[in-house]
Amino acid sequence: MTTDPVARRRTGRPRDASIDARALDAARQLLTEDGFAATTIQAVADRAGVHASAIYRRWPSRIELIAEAVFPGPSPLNMRPTGDLRRDLRRFVDAYLEVFTAPAAREAAAGLLAHSQTSTGPRQPELIRRISARPQFADILRAAPPGSIDPAVDPDDAFDMLLGAILTRVLLANTIARHTPVERIVDMTIRMLRPDSTVATGPAALRRA
Amino acid sequence: MTTDPVARRRTGRPRDASIDARALDAARQLLTEDGFAATTIQAVADRAGVHASAIYRRWPSRIELIAEAVFPGPSPLNMRPTGDLRRDLRRFVDAYLEVFTAPAAREAAAGLLAHSQTSTGPRQPELIRRISARPQFADILRAAPPGSIDPAVDPDDAFDMLLGAILTRVLLANTIARHTPVERIVDMTIRMLRPDSTVATGPAALRRA
Repeated sequence: MTTDPVARRRTGRPRDASIDARALDAARQLLTEDGFAATTIQAVADRAGVHASAIYRRWPSRIELIAEAVFPGPSPLNMRPTGDLRRDLRRFVDAYLEVFTAPAAREAAAGLLAHSQTSTGPRQPELIRRISARPQFADILRAAPPGSIDPAVDPDDAFDMLLGAILTRVLLANTIARHTPVERIVDMTIRMLRPDSTVATGPAALRRA
Repeated sequence: MTTDPVARRRTGRPRDASIDARALDAARQLLTEDGFAATTIQAVADRAGVHASAIYRRWPSRIELIAEAVFPGPSPLNMRPTGDLRRDLRRFVDAYLEVFTAPAAREAAAGLLAHSQTSTGPRQPELIRRISARPQFADILRAAPPGSIDPAVDPDDAFDMLLGAILTRVLLANTIARHTPVERIVDMTIRMLRPDSTVATGPAALRRA
């Protein structure tokens, strides 16, 4: 995750990758041990054994640092689709949940969302870029057998529903009694994607045309 | 929302409903004007013109007070289904979004979620009770025309996906460029609920039996 070329170019940070790696490691440790609020630039600098100014040269605020530390970008979700839609979707959801449920990510997710609620800074889309995996989802749909995906379905609509189910499962983990099993989430996603049946579905069938 | 009989019984609070109403109003004002962090018991007491002890007699912490102030319970989602599945779902999603996107609720939602991530107290299910509307969703499905809902679908699974889509739309409102239109969310939900088509859907169709 220290090799993210986009983040590197944008902030023009120097090339000492070891400081990046140490800061990101320190941020993950602090999140896990002390929580989101305690993961400040100064605490990360102290833990990583570098000056706070070195952290600020790399990340404009602790928010961007934390986002990069816990959501290293869509690469973990890169997987070659097998063409078995159900199997590919299950691997996709599993990989997503693995990223979100890592201890540091679990600590950070709600805090980052809370921050995004009160901030309108230009860097907010960065968080979405980090947690979105639209291209990977589209790849899976393209690899599915002919006839299994309704061409009338916008893949982004289906992805949004799936991301919602995953986020809710992660964010409400401590709150909710009932955990939707991954297989049910996959089921619902496949149902969304199915071609229209010839069975009447009432006004929906007429208006969807 | 001061007439919530469940909350009233459980906390055994006295019968001076005007204090409840003033505290809840004050909490909503503070959330909107000063944000989640500033909405403390003391600030609510000051704004409402009552002693902090009177607030504590009614709510165990600011978290429960804020939750009640912004999510008054499922009653706003109580509506008599018309039997037009698409129309009923659209009203349902609209009503949900209206609750979540009220200024005070928007301020509170991420904060409450962040709190739920770091708290394992016994009162967490209360938040879910306040934001869930499973019974209302099930009512809508029961009123739908015969043949429009696949009996193999667990309504709770479909509700979880729908709640996820709504939460994501609300929580990422400041972050995301693309707002899924309500109509697309309704479309996806109807697609999930449709009876199985006779069109082959690959392994999914076989394993769902």
